[in-house]
Amino acid sequence: MNASPLSAASGHAVPLRVGVAGLGTVGVGVIEILRNQAALIAARAGRPIEVTAVSARDRSRDRGVDLAGLGWEDDAVALARRDDVDVVVELIGGAEGTALDLARAAFSGGKSFVTANKAMIAAHGPELAAAAEESGLALAFEAAVAGGIPILKALREGLAGNAVGRVYGILNGTCNYILTEMRTTGRDFSDVLAQAQALGYAEADPTFDVDGIDTAHKLAILAALAFGGRPDIDAIHVEGIRHVTIDDIRFAEELGFRIKLLGVARMTGQGLEQRVHPCMVPLSAPIAHVEGVFNAVVAEGDAVGGTMFQGRGAGRGPTASAVVADLIDIARGHAGPAFSVPALALGAPAAAPIDAHVGAFYIRLMVLDQPGVLADVARAFATEQVSLESLIQRGRSEVEAVPVVLTTHATSEAALRRALDTIAALPAVIEPPRMIRIENSL
Amino acid sequence: MNASPLSAASGHAVPLRVGVAGLGTVGVGVIEILRNQAALIAARAGRPIEVTAVSARDRSRDRGVDLAGLGWEDDAVALARRDDVDVVVELIGGAEGTALDLARAAFSGGKSFVTANKAMIAAHGPELAAAAEESGLALAFEAAVAGGIPILKALREGLAGNAVGRVYGILNGTCNYILTEMRTTGRDFSDVLAQAQALGYAEADPTFDVDGIDTAHKLAILAALAFGGRPDIDAIHVEGIRHVTIDDIRFAEELGFRIKLLGVARMTGQGLEQRVHPCMVPLSAPIAHVEGVFNAVVAEGDAVGGTMFQGRGAGRGPTASAVVADLIDIARGHAGPAFSVPALALGAPAAAPIDAHVGAFYIRLMVLDQPGVLADVARAFATEQVSLESLIQRGRSEVEAVPVVLTTHATSEAALRRALDTIAALPAVIEPPRMIRIENSL
Repeated sequence: MNASPLSAASGHAVPLRVGVAGLGTVGVGVIEILRNQAALIAARAGRPIEVTAVSARDRSRDRGVDLAGLGWEDDAVALARRDDVDVVVELIGGAEGTALDLARAAFSGGKSFVTANKAMIAAHGPELAAAAEESGLALAFEAAVAGGIPILKALREGLAGNAVGRVYGILNGTCNYILTEMRTTGRDFSDVLAQAQALGYAEADPTFDVDGIDTAHKLAILAALAFGGRPDIDAIHVEGIRHVTIDDIRFAEELGFRIKLLGVARMTGQGLEQRVHPCMVPLSAPIAHVEGVFNAVVAEGDAVGGTMFQGRGAGRGPTASAVVADLIDIARGHAGPAFSVPALALGAPAAAPIDAHVGAFYIRLMVLDQPGVLADVARAFATEQVSLESLIQRGRSEVEAVPVVLTTHATSEAALRRALDTIAALPAVIEPPRMIRIENSL
Repeated sequence: MNASPLSAASGHAVPLRVGVAGLGTVGVGVIEILRNQAALIAARAGRPIEVTAVSARDRSRDRGVDLAGLGWEDDAVALARRDDVDVVVELIGGAEGTALDLARAAFSGGKSFVTANKAMIAAHGPELAAAAEESGLALAFEAAVAGGIPILKALREGLAGNAVGRVYGILNGTCNYILTEMRTTGRDFSDVLAQAQALGYAEADPTFDVDGIDTAHKLAILAALAFGGRPDIDAIHVEGIRHVTIDDIRFAEELGFRIKLLGVARMTGQGLEQRVHPCMVPLSAPIAHVEGVFNAVVAEGDAVGGTMFQGRGAGRGPTASAVVADLIDIARGHAGPAFSVPALALGAPAAAPIDAHVGAFYIRLMVLDQPGVLADVARAFATEQVSLESLIQRGRSEVEAVPVVLTTHATSEAALRRALDTIAALPAVIEPPRMIRIENSL
């Protein structure tokens, strides 16, 4: 480490000086926490932590926080060149552009770097970690995954003695809010999405959230820390929640499940399986009861067994809390490799294709209630060696379609898809079969 | 810090050398993890971690782990004097005696110290932390609270930017197992306790667990980290689970609650409230679904809001996982003050008496169903300004007692107790009233 104030022993009262790039809700939250809890934070960090400079687009805008006495930069990248900044906090967002320029400039300028930017870390994390480690600087991004839940620290440190077998979670509060509202009000996806947009829980363009992309970014980072490989967003099978219906939600409850959008990473004999999709989780599992905008992550270690971490995944306070925790680690001199192992030691585990996934499934068919339909359906599953766990047929009508709901025992996804292709072609099956994977949970 | 191998930069491959005192199930688990995951741990810790010496009572006993090549000490305290030991791991137990002698000897001998010993930390933690901090050594005790759940790290680091308002949890797996079994099988406390003893989930003398003492030790440590005060076991109001009946468990479910033994610490206007007792938690809260031997801790921070951490609280793997995580922190040079703030800065917050507790209550009365009984009961509550939320009267009998179950809105415990004293004296109330506190949960 070079002779920056970071190398001072943590007992000394040399302040850690912070430059904040981006003064949206989280940036303001970081400034507020560092001010309001200054004494507590200094006691825990062993030294004061002070914001000395900021950057944002519009200097004149009233953000409800006093910026007097702070340095100002119109160009965020200039924060990386200031003598009065030890650590840059990046809250601009975007995988490339200014955020990435700033990260690179921070390390070449001898500054540590804290960010909430999941897209950038999923895309460029190892490169940035290598730059940090080469210079004895810190890269930290606790806020990038599951907001206020210190899950990256838990994987990197608290469970560091464990080989992780599976890590999964509810990583997007917008989707969890929508699924919770659908279940509790009986309204359909588009209605609830419109309400979430009106309340500010969903963006005008909701694609990033509801199609699972945000969850995939976070899963790529979680998997990297858990399994010691480079984040690989392209290896993730991604499905969103647009196709989840009220019928599926009701059948789930009847069968003892709840539907959650999960990101799941699991080390298998075929390689690292990474997938984002709606899941049925058992009602007996605590994660089934993580509702509304809450996030939760389950990590399964070989020694510790299953552990679950729950909290708010977004918003000013939770995200700023994670940023401040990273700053306190840096102030203490406790910054190790950002991905748990040195960036240059990160592997590239083989990706298991989604067809190789083995698990149980929920299937909903809409069929005309004609003689022989169930026999045809059962034969299609039997031919592919898919074993059924339960079957519900509800209602009788020779003119309208009725739902037939099945759950399977564990089977390969490839076999299941072949069976569904056969079933979809049956004349009495009048809609494409709907499939939701069942995920066991502690 | 003195010139021990701990001061080597974490990138160097100087091994961290560990002496293990106590070779019960956890001690053997620590040795196994350090051997089986040696490569993973070295990558995450930046250097190898090796057990070099051990101490236990009986050298000849087969523990299923190869001790060849390890130094042996009949006297555990001698581990603190060995040149080939950097860190002592204490797994002997007991608040005083050998464990405490060993801790003191470790710090005076220039060794860091890791322990799972909640009784000793609750009683002597600040003294030991001060000794460690004075010498630049580490004291770590993640395994002392909630086994494999990295909750102390979360409070000390992950949530370090937060002022905590309340921390609470299910901290004793034996009690949670008993309460879960009672509910799911309908058998009473003594039956289930006997079964737990037969299965090895409860000790022959179960007092320590079922009377809440173990939970109180853990709560004292949690509260110390959360609120920056010295652990104060004497300030904790402690009730166990012996008096929880099947009737109460059934009424709880009917009212939308589940009964859990919680340790709760909350900062109030009257001072720090610390209590261990059976609680009714809402079925909508994730902690209600933490069942069997699992533990869970909820920490509420001013910025992050409510966060919950769940996992196995005892057993070889989980406890050893926590010990190894502490060793990895020490190997990285990441050991800060054990109680989050320097030991000499720990305060002694005023203790709020249990009478000052304000909350909602569940009350079960056994009454003779005579005219005017309910009016007398209602008048007793009204006199003390206790407002009722619900009332269930089940069954009618003029000769046998019938249960009357009430829940209150938030009220002071002192007022509630006065009302119950009045009610207990009514001729138609033929058993002492049963009271269980209702605890709100995220």
